[in-house]
Amino acid sequence: MKASVFVATSLDGYIARADGSIDWLEDASAETGEDYGFRRFFSSVDTLVMGRNTFETVLSFEKWPYGDKPVAVLSSRLTKAPEDSPKSVEVMSGSPEEVVQRLSARGAKHLYVDGGLTIQRFLQAGLIQSLTISKIPILLGSGIPLFGPLSKDVRLRHVRTQSYPSGLVQSEYEVLQ
Amino acid sequence: MKASVFVATSLDGYIARADGSIDWLEDASAETGEDYGFRRFFSSVDTLVMGRNTFETVLSFEKWPYGDKPVAVLSSRLTKAPEDSPKSVEVMSGSPEEVVQRLSARGAKHLYVDGGLTIQRFLQAGLIQSLTISKIPILLGSGIPLFGPLSKDVRLRHVRTQSYPSGLVQSEYEVLQ
Repeated sequence: MKASVFVATSLDGYIARADGSIDWLEDASAETGEDYGFRRFFSSVDTLVMGRNTFETVLSFEKWPYGDKPVAVLSSRLTKAPEDSPKSVEVMSGSPEEVVQRLSARGAKHLYVDGGLTIQRFLQAGLIQSLTISKIPILLGSGIPLFGPLSKDVRLRHVRTQSYPSGLVQSEYEVLQ
Repeated sequence: MKASVFVATSLDGYIARADGSIDWLEDASAETGEDYGFRRFFSSVDTLVMGRNTFETVLSFEKWPYGDKPVAVLSSRLTKAPEDSPKSVEVMSGSPEEVVQRLSARGAKHLYVDGGLTIQRFLQAGLIQSLTISKIPILLGSGIPLFGPLSKDVRLRHVRTQSYPSGLVQSEYEVLQ
């Protein structure tokens, strides 16, 4: 089992403004058809794991972006998926370790872990193997941070970095446990 | 007059641990003689501007690293430089605008602005034109952040990115005002 993060942040490390908006992110990618490797990454994962906040943001999009790929929504409050959710969505609670075990028992091989707090919890639990971070050339000054507290340093191995004409700089790291 | 930042951070955006230590940074560069472009950058600036905290850290180093290049130490508490300071050090107070005006009046053409809070104040005042940030492949989880609150978005133009065998990734940005 492998778990990966693929996420865009401002240069100062925010994945969204404090109110959740990602207007600054859309600005940066709207001009080109460039997908910054997302489709290739997405086709390599078999299951998504995200927190409730991220799920609700995605559910508000005009079109559900994940096809019929299974999505585990982590929540201690929800007991089941909202009525308007795709059938591929399942609500789960429990620790990152429990979630990974449950998904692994069903045959999941490569998780796409998304959402600030969920990424932080999985990193802290040592359950992320790969980080791909796309830096947008903007400083927001405040917002929802990608990274959070850790009980110890997490060492990384730089795999590759690529910059794009839009100014986006994407770096991939392997997490060294 | 131009002002530039040239700084290393952890992947999660810290310039030092909470206690000011940069052991994780020394780890990353000790193995090679690589200076990541620092000498070239340093030779392009004529005056350094830093906060008292950064100054005191640098003063504790075995060797003063800035030769006889003028250093303005910003402090509202100190009135003059400590006895053991090099003659090139001068204590200043005042807003970033006032400091830039004073140094400019003396003929300074290119400032090297250093230290977390000082960088944040100069950025917030719109007085930084160039940012060169070297990302070290480590997550610290906490510490002294490079970036801080801003009253509005700061848009940047990506100039170049270079990665090194050590895993350090250096990106240069121009600040768009």
